Amino acid sequence: MQLVIGNKNYSSWSMRPWVLMRALGLPFEERMLRFDFHDANSRFSAEAAKLSPTARVPVLLEADGFAVWDSLAMAERLHECFPNAGVWPADPRQRARARSLCASMHSGFGKLRSLCPMNIEADLRDIGRQLVAQEPGLRADLQQLEALWLPELTAHGGPWLFGAAFCAADAFFAPVAMRVKGYGLPLAPPAQAYVEALSQQSAVQEWVQAALGEHHWVPEDEPYRQGPSSGQL
Amino acid sequence: MQLVIGNKNYSSWSMRPWVLMRALGLPFEERMLRFDFHDANSRFSAEAAKLSPTARVPVLLEADGFAVWDSLAMAERLHECFPNAGVWPADPRQRARARSLCASMHSGFGKLRSLCPMNIEADLRDIGRQLVAQEPGLRADLQQLEALWLPELTAHGGPWLFGAAFCAADAFFAPVAMRVKGYGLPLAPPAQAYVEALSQQSAVQEWVQAALGEHHWVPEDEPYRQGPSSGQL
Repeated sequence: MQLVIGNKNYSSWSMRPWVLMRALGLPFEERMLRFDFHDANSRFSAEAAKLSPTARVPVLLEADGFAVWDSLAMAERLHECFPNAGVWPADPRQRARARSLCASMHSGFGKLRSLCPMNIEADLRDIGRQLVAQEPGLRADLQQLEALWLPELTAHGGPWLFGAAFCAADAFFAPVAMRVKGYGLPLAPPAQAYVEALSQQSAVQEWVQAALGEHHWVPEDEPYRQGPSSGQL
Repeated sequence: MQLVIGNKNYSSWSMRPWVLMRALGLPFEERMLRFDFHDANSRFSAEAAKLSPTARVPVLLEADGFAVWDSLAMAERLHECFPNAGVWPADPRQRARARSLCASMHSGFGKLRSLCPMNIEADLRDIGRQLVAQEPGLRADLQQLEALWLPELTAHGGPWLFGAAFCAADAFFAPVAMRVKGYGLPLAPPAQAYVEALSQQSAVQEWVQAALGEHHWVPEDEPYRQGPSSGQL
Protein backbone atom coordinates (compact mmCIF):
# COMPACT_ATOMS: atom_id res chain seq x y z
CA MET A 1 0.00 0.00 0.00
CA GLN A 2 1.08 3.54 -0.63
CA LEU A 3 0.09 6.32 1.77
CA VAL A 4 0.06 9.75 0.16
CA ILE A 5 0.55 12.50 2.74
CA GLY A 6 1.17 16.23 3.01
CA ASN A 7 4.02 18.01 4.79
CA LYS A 8 4.68 16.33 8.12
CA ASN A 9 4.97 19.70 9.84
CA TYR A 10 1.43 20.74 8.94
CA SER A 11 -0.73 17.86 7.79
CA SER A 12 -2.68 16.72 10.82
CA TRP A 13 -5.02 14.57 8.72
CA SER A 14 -2.04 12.77 7.17
CA MET A 15 -0.44 12.19 10.54
CA ARG A 16 -3.32 10.00 11.72
CA PRO A 17 -3.12 7.05 9.31
CA TRP A 18 0.68 7.33 9.10
CA VAL A 19 1.09 7.05 12.87
CA LEU A 20 -1.55 4.32 13.03
CA MET A 21 0.09 2.17 10.36
CA ARG A 22 3.57 2.70 11.74
CA ALA A 23 2.51 2.02 15.34
CA LEU A 24 0.76 -1.20 14.31
CA GLY A 25 3.64 -2.31 12.11
CA LEU A 26 1.61 -2.33 8.91
CA PRO A 27 3.97 -1.98 5.95
CA PHE A 28 3.44 0.91 3.54
CA GLU A 29 5.31 3.10 1.14
CA GLU A 30 5.13 6.83 1.83
CA ARG A 31 4.68 9.48 -0.82
CA MET A 32 4.60 13.16 0.04
CA LEU A 33 2.68 15.74 -1.96
CA ARG A 34 4.20 18.89 -0.62
CA PHE A 35 1.82 21.77 0.15
CA ASP A 36 2.65 24.87 -1.82
CA PHE A 37 -0.12 27.42 -1.39
CA HIS A 38 -3.74 27.25 -0.33
CA ASP A 39 -4.90 27.75 -3.85
CA ALA A 40 -7.28 25.59 -5.82
CA ASN A 41 -4.94 25.99 -8.79
CA SER A 42 -1.82 24.97 -6.90
CA ARG A 43 0.49 22.18 -7.96
CA PHE A 44 -0.54 20.33 -4.82
CA SER A 45 -4.23 20.45 -5.73
CA ALA A 46 -3.53 19.38 -9.31
CA GLU A 47 -1.60 16.34 -8.11
CA ALA A 48 -4.06 15.48 -5.34
CA ALA A 49 -6.99 15.70 -7.76
CA LYS A 50 -5.47 12.82 -9.71
CA LEU A 51 -5.75 10.61 -6.63
CA SER A 52 -9.24 11.26 -5.25
CA PRO A 53 -12.28 13.44 -5.98
CA THR A 54 -11.60 15.42 -2.82
CA ALA A 55 -8.16 16.57 -4.06
CA ARG A 56 -6.89 16.22 -0.53
CA VAL A 57 -4.46 14.14 1.44
CA PRO A 58 -4.17 11.60 2.92
CA VAL A 59 -5.01 8.97 0.33
CA LEU A 60 -4.29 5.27 0.72
CA LEU A 61 -3.52 3.64 -2.62
CA GLU A 62 -3.70 -0.11 -2.91
CA ALA A 63 -1.39 -2.06 -5.24
CA ASP A 64 -3.68 -1.70 -8.26
CA GLY A 65 -4.38 1.98 -7.61
CA PHE A 66 -7.68 1.61 -5.72
CA ALA A 67 -7.94 4.73 -3.56
CA VAL A 68 -9.34 5.03 -0.07
CA TRP A 69 -9.50 8.60 1.12
CA ASP A 70 -10.26 10.16 4.45
CA SER A 71 -8.42 8.96 7.53
CA LEU A 72 -11.51 7.41 9.12
CA ALA A 73 -12.42 5.37 6.05
CA MET A 74 -8.78 4.26 5.92
CA ALA A 75 -8.90 3.02 9.49
CA GLU A 76 -11.90 0.86 8.60
CA ARG A 77 -10.24 -0.44 5.44
CA LEU A 78 -7.12 -1.36 7.41
CA HIS A 79 -9.30 -3.01 10.06
CA GLU A 80 -10.93 -5.14 7.35
CA CYS A 81 -7.67 -5.99 5.57
CA PHE A 82 -5.73 -6.67 8.79
CA PRO A 83 -8.36 -7.74 11.33
CA ASN A 84 -5.76 -8.85 13.87
CA ALA A 85 -3.54 -5.79 13.67
CA GLY A 86 -5.34 -3.95 16.46
CA VAL A 87 -6.67 -0.98 14.51
CA TRP A 88 -9.59 -0.97 16.97
CA PRO A 89 -9.92 -2.52 20.45
CA ALA A 90 -10.83 -6.22 20.41
CA ASP A 91 -13.85 -5.74 22.69
CA PRO A 92 -16.92 -4.78 20.62
CA ARG A 93 -18.11 -2.05 22.98
CA GLN A 94 -14.66 -0.59 23.42
CA ARG A 95 -14.47 -0.63 19.63
CA ALA A 96 -17.78 1.24 19.41
CA ARG A 97 -16.57 3.76 21.95
CA ALA A 98 -13.23 4.19 20.15
CA ARG A 99 -15.16 4.94 16.97
CA SER A 100 -17.36 7.46 18.82
CA LEU A 101 -14.22 9.24 19.98
CA CYS A 102 -12.62 9.23 16.54
CA ALA A 103 -15.81 10.42 14.87
CA SER A 104 -16.14 13.24 17.42
CA MET A 105 -12.60 14.33 16.57
CA HIS A 106 -13.27 13.91 12.87
CA SER A 107 -16.28 16.22 12.69
CA GLY A 108 -15.80 18.49 15.68
CA PHE A 109 -13.29 20.65 17.55
CA GLY A 110 -13.77 23.50 15.10
CA LYS A 111 -12.11 26.14 17.27
CA LEU A 112 -9.10 24.01 18.18
CA ARG A 113 -8.65 23.16 14.52
CA SER A 114 -9.08 26.65 13.07
CA LEU A 115 -7.32 28.67 15.77
CA CYS A 116 -4.46 26.27 16.46
CA PRO A 117 -3.44 24.64 13.16
CA MET A 118 -0.80 21.98 13.60
CA ASN A 119 2.71 23.32 13.19
CA ILE A 120 5.08 20.90 14.84
CA GLU A 121 8.20 22.97 14.34
CA ALA A 122 6.95 26.26 15.80
CA ASP A 123 6.82 27.41 19.44
CA LEU A 124 3.42 29.08 19.59
CA ARG A 125 2.93 29.24 23.34
CA ASP A 126 2.57 33.03 23.44
CA ILE A 127 -0.16 32.84 20.81
CA GLY A 128 -1.78 29.93 22.62
CA ARG A 129 -1.93 31.85 25.89
CA GLN A 130 -3.72 34.74 24.21
CA LEU A 131 -6.12 32.45 22.38
CA VAL A 132 -7.08 30.60 25.54
CA ALA A 133 -7.75 33.89 27.29
CA GLN A 134 -9.82 35.31 24.44
CA GLU A 135 -11.67 32.38 22.93
CA PRO A 136 -14.36 30.63 24.98
CA GLY A 137 -14.90 28.22 22.09
CA LEU A 138 -11.31 27.05 22.35
CA ARG A 139 -11.67 26.55 26.10
CA ALA A 140 -14.84 24.54 25.44
CA ASP A 141 -12.94 22.34 22.96
CA LEU A 142 -10.27 21.66 25.59
CA GLN A 143 -12.95 20.71 28.12
CA GLN A 144 -14.46 18.44 25.48
CA LEU A 145 -11.12 16.68 25.07
CA GLU A 146 -11.00 16.00 28.79
CA ALA A 147 -14.61 14.78 28.72
CA LEU A 148 -13.77 12.32 25.96
CA TRP A 149 -10.43 11.13 27.26
CA LEU A 150 -10.66 10.92 31.02
CA PRO A 151 -13.43 8.30 31.33
CA GLU A 152 -11.55 5.95 29.00
CA LEU A 153 -8.15 6.52 30.58
CA THR A 154 -9.69 5.86 33.99
CA ALA A 155 -11.73 2.84 32.91
CA HIS A 156 -8.86 1.08 31.12
CA GLY A 157 -5.92 2.24 33.21
CA GLY A 158 -3.95 3.89 30.39
CA PRO A 159 -1.45 4.68 29.07
CA TRP A 160 -3.65 4.66 25.95
CA LEU A 161 -7.34 5.41 25.73
CA PHE A 162 -8.29 1.75 25.71
CA GLY A 163 -5.54 0.40 27.91
CA ALA A 164 -2.21 -1.15 27.01
CA ALA A 165 -2.71 -1.25 23.24
CA PHE A 166 -2.30 1.83 21.05
CA CYS A 167 -5.24 1.95 18.60
CA ALA A 168 -6.79 4.20 15.98
CA ALA A 169 -8.37 6.42 18.63
CA ASP A 170 -4.93 7.29 19.97
CA ALA A 171 -3.59 7.88 16.47
CA PHE A 172 -6.51 10.23 15.79
CA PHE A 173 -5.59 12.37 18.78
CA ALA A 174 -1.85 12.48 18.02
CA PRO A 175 -2.19 15.76 16.07
CA VAL A 176 -4.14 17.17 19.01
CA ALA A 177 -1.19 16.36 21.25
CA MET A 178 1.01 18.34 18.86
CA ARG A 179 -1.31 21.33 19.13
CA VAL A 180 -1.56 21.14 22.90
CA LYS A 181 2.22 21.15 23.18
CA GLY A 182 2.93 23.69 20.44
CA TYR A 183 0.41 26.21 21.72
CA GLY A 184 0.89 25.34 25.40
CA LEU A 185 -2.82 24.65 25.87
CA PRO A 186 -3.94 23.93 29.43
CA LEU A 187 -5.51 20.57 30.30
CA ALA A 188 -6.21 18.70 33.52
CA PRO A 189 -3.17 16.69 34.70
CA PRO A 190 -4.38 13.24 33.51
CA ALA A 191 -5.17 14.66 30.06
CA GLN A 192 -1.81 16.41 30.00
CA ALA A 193 -0.14 13.12 30.90
CA TYR A 194 -1.90 11.45 27.98
CA VAL A 195 -0.68 14.23 25.66
CA GLU A 196 2.84 13.62 26.95
CA ALA A 197 2.55 9.85 26.38
CA LEU A 198 1.26 10.44 22.86
CA SER A 199 4.10 12.85 22.13
CA GLN A 200 6.65 10.27 23.21
CA GLN A 201 5.10 7.31 21.38
CA SER A 202 7.66 5.90 18.94
CA ALA A 203 5.66 6.35 15.70
CA VAL A 204 4.70 9.87 16.76
CA GLN A 205 8.32 10.66 17.53
CA GLU A 206 9.39 9.34 14.15
CA TRP A 207 6.87 11.66 12.46
CA VAL A 208 7.92 14.63 14.64
CA GLN A 209 11.62 14.19 13.88
CA ALA A 210 10.87 14.07 10.16
CA ALA A 211 8.67 17.18 10.50
CA LEU A 212 11.46 19.05 12.27
CA GLY A 213 13.83 18.22 9.43
CA GLU A 214 11.53 19.44 6.67
CA HIS A 215 11.98 23.23 6.70
CA HIS A 216 9.47 23.57 3.88
CA TRP A 217 7.39 26.37 5.28
CA VAL A 218 4.22 27.54 3.67
CA PRO A 219 4.30 31.34 4.06
CA GLU A 220 0.54 31.68 4.51
CA ASP A 221 0.71 29.34 7.50
CA GLU A 222 3.58 31.18 9.11
CA PRO A 223 2.53 34.78 9.81
CA TYR A 224 4.59 34.70 13.01
CA ARG A 225 7.79 33.35 11.52
CA GLN A 226 10.64 35.87 11.23
CA GLY A 227 12.85 35.81 8.19
CA PRO A 228 12.67 33.92 4.94
CA SER A 229 11.73 30.31 4.53
CA SER A 230 14.70 28.02 4.30
CA GLY A 231 12.78 25.71 2.00
CA GLN A 232 11.95 26.08 -1.64
CA LEU A 233 8.29 25.61 -2.42
CA MET B 1 -32.23 0.26 20.91
CA GLN B 2 -33.29 3.83 21.48
CA LEU B 3 -32.26 6.57 19.06
CA VAL B 4 -32.20 10.02 20.64
CA ILE B 5 -32.65 12.75 18.04
CA GLY B 6 -33.26 16.49 17.74
CA ASN B 7 -36.08 18.29 15.92
CA LYS B 8 -36.74 16.59 12.61
CA ASN B 9 -37.00 19.94 10.86
CA TYR B 10 -33.45 20.95 11.76
CA SER B 11 -31.31 18.05 12.95
CA SER B 12 -29.37 16.87 9.93
CA TRP B 13 -27.07 14.72 12.05
CA SER B 14 -30.07 12.96 13.61
CA MET B 15 -31.67 12.36 10.24
CA ARG B 16 -28.82 10.13 9.08
CA PRO B 17 -29.05 7.21 11.52
CA TRP B 18 -32.85 7.53 11.73
CA VAL B 19 -33.25 7.21 7.97
CA LEU B 20 -30.64 4.45 7.83
CA MET B 21 -32.31 2.33 10.52
CA ARG B 22 -35.78 2.89 9.13
CA ALA B 23 -34.71 2.18 5.54
CA LEU B 24 -32.99 -1.05 6.61
CA GLY B 25 -35.90 -2.12 8.80
CA LEU B 26 -33.86 -2.12 12.02
CA PRO B 27 -36.22 -1.73 14.97
CA PHE B 28 -35.67 1.18 17.33
CA GLU B 29 -37.51 3.42 19.71
CA GLU B 30 -37.31 7.13 18.99
CA ARG B 31 -36.84 9.81 21.61
CA MET B 32 -36.73 13.46 20.72
CA LEU B 33 -34.78 16.05 22.70
CA ARG B 34 -36.24 19.21 21.31
CA PHE B 35 -33.83 22.06 20.55
CA ASP B 36 -34.64 25.16 22.49
CA PHE B 37 -31.88 27.69 22.04
CA HIS B 38 -28.25 27.50 20.99
CA ASP B 39 -27.09 28.05 24.51
CA ALA B 40 -24.73 25.89 26.51
CA ASN B 41 -27.08 26.29 29.45
CA SER B 42 -30.19 25.28 27.56
CA ARG B 43 -32.53 22.53 28.64
CA PHE B 44 -31.51 20.65 25.50
CA SER B 45 -27.83 20.74 26.43
CA ALA B 46 -28.52 19.72 30.00
CA GLU B 47 -30.48 16.67 28.84
CA ALA B 48 -28.03 15.76 26.09
CA ALA B 49 -25.10 15.98 28.51
CA LYS B 50 -26.65 13.13 30.49
CA LEU B 51 -26.38 10.89 27.44
CA SER B 52 -22.89 11.50 26.06
CA PRO B 53 -19.82 13.66 26.76
CA THR B 54 -20.47 15.61 23.58
CA ALA B 55 -23.90 16.80 24.80
CA ARG B 56 -25.20 16.44 21.27
CA VAL B 57 -27.64 14.37 19.33
CA PRO B 58 -27.96 11.81 17.87
CA VAL B 59 -27.14 9.19 20.49
CA LEU B 60 -27.90 5.48 20.14
CA LEU B 61 -28.68 3.90 23.48
CA GLU B 62 -28.55 0.14 23.82
CA ALA B 63 -30.86 -1.75 26.18
CA ASP B 64 -28.57 -1.37 29.20
CA GLY B 65 -27.83 2.28 28.50
CA PHE B 66 -24.55 1.86 26.62
CA ALA B 67 -24.25 4.96 24.43
CA VAL B 68 -22.85 5.21 20.94
CA TRP B 69 -22.66 8.75 19.71
CA ASP B 70 -21.88 10.28 16.37
CA SER B 71 -23.72 9.07 13.29
CA LEU B 72 -20.65 7.48 11.72
CA ALA B 73 -19.76 5.45 14.81
CA MET B 74 -23.43 4.38 14.95
CA ALA B 75 -23.31 3.10 11.39
CA GLU B 76 -20.31 0.93 12.29
CA ARG B 77 -21.99 -0.31 15.47
CA LEU B 78 -25.12 -1.23 13.51
CA HIS B 79 -22.95 -2.95 10.88
CA GLU B 80 -21.35 -5.06 13.62
CA CYS B 81 -24.62 -5.85 15.40
CA PHE B 82 -26.57 -6.53 12.19
CA PRO B 83 -23.96 -7.67 9.67
CA ASN B 84 -26.56 -8.79 7.14
CA ALA B 85 -28.76 -5.70 7.30
CA GLY B 86 -26.91 -3.91 4.50
CA VAL B 87 -25.57 -0.93 6.41
CA TRP B 88 -22.65 -0.97 3.96
CA PRO B 89 -22.33 -2.55 0.50
CA ALA B 90 -21.46 -6.26 0.56
CA ASP B 91 -18.44 -5.85 -1.70
CA PRO B 92 -15.35 -4.87 0.36
CA ARG B 93 -14.13 -2.22 -2.05
CA GLN B 94 -17.57 -0.71 -2.49
CA ARG B 95 -17.76 -0.70 1.30
CA ALA B 96 -14.43 1.14 1.51
CA ARG B 97 -15.62 3.62 -1.07
CA ALA B 98 -18.95 4.13 0.73
CA ARG B 99 -17.01 4.89 3.89
CA SER B 100 -14.79 7.36 2.03
CA LEU B 101 -17.91 9.16 0.84
CA CYS B 102 -19.50 9.21 4.30
CA ALA B 103 -16.32 10.38 5.95
CA SER B 104 -15.96 13.17 3.38
CA MET B 105 -19.48 14.30 4.21
CA HIS B 106 -18.79 13.92 7.92
CA SER B 107 -15.77 16.21 8.07
CA GLY B 108 -16.24 18.43 5.05
CA PHE B 109 -18.71 20.59 3.15
CA GLY B 110 -18.20 23.46 5.57
CA LYS B 111 -19.84 26.11 3.37
CA LEU B 112 -22.87 24.00 2.48
CA ARG B 113 -23.33 23.21 6.17
CA SER B 114 -22.87 26.68 7.57
CA LEU B 115 -24.60 28.70 4.85
CA CYS B 116 -27.48 26.32 4.19
CA PRO B 117 -28.52 24.74 7.50
CA MET B 118 -31.19 22.10 7.08
CA ASN B 119 -34.68 23.49 7.47
CA ILE B 120 -37.09 21.08 5.84
CA GLU B 121 -40.18 23.19 6.31
CA ALA B 122 -38.90 26.43 4.82
CA ASP B 123 -38.75 27.54 1.19
CA LEU B 124 -35.33 29.19 1.00
CA ARG B 125 -34.85 29.31 -2.73
CA ASP B 126 -34.45 33.08 -2.88
CA ILE B 127 -31.72 32.91 -0.25
CA GLY B 128 -30.14 29.94 -2.03
CA ARG B 129 -29.96 31.82 -5.33
CA GLN B 130 -28.15 34.71 -3.65
CA LEU B 131 -25.77 32.42 -1.82
CA VAL B 132 -24.81 30.51 -4.95
CA ALA B 133 -24.11 33.79 -6.75
CA GLN B 134 -22.04 35.22 -3.90
CA GLU B 135 -20.22 32.28 -2.36
CA PRO B 136 -17.55 30.50 -4.40
CA GLY B 137 -17.02 28.09 -1.47
CA LEU B 138 -20.63 26.97 -1.73
CA ARG B 139 -20.28 26.42 -5.47
CA ALA B 140 -17.13 24.39 -4.77
CA ASP B 141 -19.06 22.24 -2.29
CA LEU B 142 -21.73 21.56 -4.91
CA GLN B 143 -19.06 20.55 -7.42
CA GLN B 144 -17.58 18.30 -4.76
CA LEU B 145 -20.94 16.57 -4.32
CA GLU B 146 -21.04 15.86 -8.05
CA ALA B 147 -17.45 14.60 -7.96
CA LEU B 148 -18.32 12.18 -5.15
CA TRP B 149 -21.68 11.00 -6.46
CA LEU B 150 -21.44 10.76 -10.23
CA PRO B 151 -18.70 8.11 -10.50
CA GLU B 152 -20.61 5.79 -8.15
CA LEU B 153 -24.01 6.40 -9.74
CA THR B 154 -22.46 5.69 -13.14
CA ALA B 155 -20.45 2.66 -12.02
CA HIS B 156 -23.34 0.95 -10.22
CA GLY B 157 -26.28 2.11 -12.31
CA GLY B 158 -28.25 3.82 -9.51
CA PRO B 159 -30.73 4.63 -8.20
CA TRP B 160 -28.53 4.63 -5.10
CA LEU B 161 -24.83 5.34 -4.88
CA PHE B 162 -23.91 1.67 -4.82
CA GLY B 163 -26.68 0.33 -7.00
CA ALA B 164 -30.02 -1.15 -6.09
CA ALA B 165 -29.53 -1.24 -2.31
CA PHE B 166 -29.91 1.88 -0.15
CA CYS B 167 -26.96 1.98 2.29
CA ALA B 168 -25.39 4.25 4.90
CA ALA B 169 -23.78 6.42 2.23
CA ASP B 170 -27.22 7.30 0.87
CA ALA B 171 -28.55 7.96 4.37
CA PHE B 172 -25.61 10.27 5.02
CA PHE B 173 -26.51 12.37 2.01
CA ALA B 174 -30.25 12.55 2.77
CA PRO B 175 -29.88 15.85 4.69
CA VAL B 176 -27.90 17.21 1.73
CA ALA B 177 -30.85 16.40 -0.50
CA MET B 178 -33.04 18.42 1.87
CA ARG B 179 -30.68 21.40 1.58
CA VAL B 180 -30.43 21.16 -2.21
CA LYS B 181 -34.22 21.20 -2.50
CA GLY B 182 -34.91 23.77 0.22
CA TYR B 183 -32.35 26.28 -1.07
CA GLY B 184 -32.85 25.35 -4.75
CA LEU B 185 -29.14 24.63 -5.22
CA PRO B 186 -28.04 23.85 -8.77
CA LEU B 187 -26.49 20.48 -9.60
CA ALA B 188 -25.81 18.57 -12.80
CA PRO B 189 -28.86 16.56 -13.96
CA PRO B 190 -27.70 13.12 -12.74
CA ALA B 191 -26.90 14.58 -9.30
CA GLN B 192 -30.24 16.36 -9.26
CA ALA B 193 -31.95 13.08 -10.13
CA TYR B 194 -30.20 11.42 -7.19
CA VAL B 195 -31.39 14.23 -4.90
CA GLU B 196 -34.92 13.64 -6.18
CA ALA B 197 -34.67 9.89 -5.58
CA LEU B 198 -33.36 10.50 -2.06
CA SER B 199 -36.19 12.94 -1.35
CA GLN B 200 -38.77 10.38 -2.41
CA GLN B 201 -37.24 7.43 -0.55
CA SER B 202 -39.81 6.08 1.90
CA ALA B 203 -37.82 6.52 5.14
CA VAL B 204 -36.80 10.02 4.05
CA GLN B 205 -40.44 10.83 3.25
CA GLU B 206 -41.51 9.57 6.66
CA TRP B 207 -38.97 11.88 8.33
CA VAL B 208 -39.99 14.83 6.12
CA GLN B 209 -43.68 14.43 6.87
CA ALA B 210 -42.95 14.36 10.60
CA ALA B 211 -40.71 17.45 10.23
CA LEU B 212 -43.48 19.32 8.43
CA GLY B 213 -45.84 18.54 11.29
CA GLU B 214 -43.56 19.79 14.04
CA HIS B 215 -43.98 23.58 13.95
CA HIS B 216 -41.48 23.98 16.77
CA TRP B 217 -39.40 26.77 15.36
CA VAL B 218 -36.15 27.80 16.97
CA PRO B 219 -36.18 31.61 16.56
CA GLU B 220 -32.43 31.91 16.10
CA ASP B 221 -32.62 29.54 13.13
CA GLU B 222 -35.47 31.38 11.50
CA PRO B 223 -34.41 34.97 10.77
CA TYR B 224 -36.45 34.89 7.54
CA ARG B 225 -39.68 33.61 9.04
CA GLN B 226 -42.46 36.19 9.25
CA GLY B 227 -44.72 36.33 12.23
CA PRO B 228 -44.59 34.59 15.58
CA SER B 229 -43.70 30.97 16.12
CA SER B 230 -46.65 28.66 16.06
CA GLY B 231 -44.90 26.29 18.44
CA GLN B 232 -44.06 26.57 22.11
CA LEU B 233 -40.44 25.99 22.95
